[in-house]
Amino acid sequence: MSTLEGKVLVAQGGGPTAVINQSLVGAVLESRKFPQVTRVYGALHGVRGIIDEDFLDLTEATTHNLEAVGNTPSSALLSTRDKPDQAYCHKIFEVCKAHNVRYFFYIGGNDSADTCRIVNREADEAKYELRVIHVPKTIDNDLLVTDHCPGYGSAAKFVAQAFAGANLDNRAIPGVYIGVVMGRHAGFLTAASCLARMYPDDGPHLIYVPERPVVKEKLLADVKSVYDKYGRCVLAASEGIVDPRGVAIATQFTNGEMDSHGNVQLSGTGALGDLLSAWVKNNLKIKRVRADTLGYLQRSFLGCVSEVDQFEAREVGEKAAQYAIWHRLDGSVAIRRTGDYSVEYFLTPLDTVARESRGMPPEYINEAGNDVTDAFRNYIRPLVGSLPQMARIAAPEVARILKK
Amino acid sequence: MSTLEGKVLVAQGGGPTAVINQSLVGAVLESRKFPQVTRVYGALHGVRGIIDEDFLDLTEATTHNLEAVGNTPSSALLSTRDKPDQAYCHKIFEVCKAHNVRYFFYIGGNDSADTCRIVNREADEAKYELRVIHVPKTIDNDLLVTDHCPGYGSAAKFVAQAFAGANLDNRAIPGVYIGVVMGRHAGFLTAASCLARMYPDDGPHLIYVPERPVVKEKLLADVKSVYDKYGRCVLAASEGIVDPRGVAIATQFTNGEMDSHGNVQLSGTGALGDLLSAWVKNNLKIKRVRADTLGYLQRSFLGCVSEVDQFEAREVGEKAAQYAIWHRLDGSVAIRRTGDYSVEYFLTPLDTVARESRGMPPEYINEAGNDVTDAFRNYIRPLVGSLPQMARIAAPEVARILKK
Repeated sequence: MSTLEGKVLVAQGGGPTAVINQSLVGAVLESRKFPQVTRVYGALHGVRGIIDEDFLDLTEATTHNLEAVGNTPSSALLSTRDKPDQAYCHKIFEVCKAHNVRYFFYIGGNDSADTCRIVNREADEAKYELRVIHVPKTIDNDLLVTDHCPGYGSAAKFVAQAFAGANLDNRAIPGVYIGVVMGRHAGFLTAASCLARMYPDDGPHLIYVPERPVVKEKLLADVKSVYDKYGRCVLAASEGIVDPRGVAIATQFTNGEMDSHGNVQLSGTGALGDLLSAWVKNNLKIKRVRADTLGYLQRSFLGCVSEVDQFEAREVGEKAAQYAIWHRLDGSVAIRRTGDYSVEYFLTPLDTVARESRGMPPEYINEAGNDVTDAFRNYIRPLVGSLPQMARIAAPEVARILKK
Repeated sequence: MSTLEGKVLVAQGGGPTAVINQSLVGAVLESRKFPQVTRVYGALHGVRGIIDEDFLDLTEATTHNLEAVGNTPSSALLSTRDKPDQAYCHKIFEVCKAHNVRYFFYIGGNDSADTCRIVNREADEAKYELRVIHVPKTIDNDLLVTDHCPGYGSAAKFVAQAFAGANLDNRAIPGVYIGVVMGRHAGFLTAASCLARMYPDDGPHLIYVPERPVVKEKLLADVKSVYDKYGRCVLAASEGIVDPRGVAIATQFTNGEMDSHGNVQLSGTGALGDLLSAWVKNNLKIKRVRADTLGYLQRSFLGCVSEVDQFEAREVGEKAAQYAIWHRLDGSVAIRRTGDYSVEYFLTPLDTVARESRGMPPEYINEAGNDVTDAFRNYIRPLVGSLPQMARIAAPEVARILKK
């Protein structure tokens, strides 16, 4: 097979993750090995940097620098919330052509996959060979086809460590603790809080995800039941939980700010946590109720990474370069689970991943809709790996002398 | 010197920290070495567990278990918000006497030191020899006499890692990011966010602490100035920031819930962050404004510990046992900085630590009241130690072809 000589262009889109730069570094270092690759460019601020021709020449970055960048959370090439339409994608293609870009790797979610799909079609129609690979990343874990998404395992680890600590805190000073976790439509990240449990009475005792409507009275009954049993309660809720009409509970109380995709702002505000707090305080007459919104720390906290996630994010980047440059293929890199725990990578057509998303399958959520199942625990445990040590004191009680 | 035979009693009070169990384990393991110590008891739920005689016999805990407990955040003996008065302290003393407790170690903040002081006096007046040692802990770092408090370094590290990640995130998707940090009267913890900076344009760009009143118009001008310069802004604010009248800004918008010390609830609600967010949105017309309240994660997140803090927390626990059992002294264990960085421990009278607290000294805050000084950076850096690696891409820009 004759080789296709030209440049590689890499960009990162959407919300950052803790390991998104592993994918970048994997794609760049692998691309630099191929003699037909004349240069490796990085576009700043995603697709916006392409149409603005804001490129860095990553061929001249040192390997040491790139390795350090790989360990850094959040998009090193910066990001964008732009969602390109046909005309935007046409401009992307024109810039690629002008710079003799022959390989385009876009690291992002389903919107990014859709951009890849349209740009790819533009190039085909113009009979300009441009190999386009979508490299998956999202903390929401909501992409189709792939078993799971790079970025999810590390965010899930953060959530697990956050709830493990919050549970210990809540046990030391009892009350109701509510933790609001990112996830507009998919509950995968909130569900990861289940890993915080070690002893049978450990929280989170209740987990609510967007896939199952939340009935206020039912939630309050759940909290009361846990509180009556343990004298405390830790509750995990997705920011995107909906009422039985399907309306997000948080949106009923925000100012309704929309992003460029027409989505209402759910993150970066404590409103849902404070609302759930008020529900519990006002209806159950429990005095000590605290709500934390885990916020942006979930996706960017420095120094909380799942090793498996880190490796896989690196490998999907490398595979992008291999599929495009060795095999001259287009598609989205996906992960297939082959054992417990082993995976293989494969390429799936761009239109199988573009635009659409998935939520948690029903078998991962318990019947009452307030917890996860063993099936989910088996699914997530290898993606997060081991958590830092924690232990309770194992010592006998002492007989009372004054109060018998 | 004749030895004093009897039991050791240890308890933990107030808000947990990431290393509070190191102090517990240090005190317990050291106490178990002395032949005159007949048993080592741990009171559950702080002083409340003492008057209820809820004790665990820590003499029978394995060393391995205790070491694992030491690495676990949050009070392993559980905690209380009870603030004992004279009558309560008398009951504590009565229980100590009934169980032949001769050494009482209470790990906590200035309220715990005050409890130690009163119990100690009760015993003196009853001519019952009871050696009482206060072991310092607080993430607020607001105890008198000591150079710094065990628990602070680890919480400070969490804050630094949180802002390091938030800064990278804000750089990737620009806007205004507001992070609200714990600290009712002392800004030490919020000030620790300065360690997140690496490059000159890194955030947090603005740091507000309770020691200096916040004028709304001044804060908005600060944000505007940073935003105009960098196209983005990361702001760190203490939950306890006050207006020029000295009224906490957060309390003007909460439901006014008081704890048993008469303090209004500032944590466990997103209200202050949302308020500051609204200030910026409404006055500066900046669209993307996000606020996170770091909440309980700051003091309990599993797996974020400063090594120096961990060692020192262990040592103040050990020293408590040594001062009491070898030397038959009472007091509060304190840390003196002797070099850069080296420390020594000493015992300070209980009444020098009890009740009162300290804020940041003026030389740690810049003149404009919106940042810290080099003096503070030199103070805090060794307490937190090194942070996880982060790096930006170092690569040249590419010349534009279409847009010249």
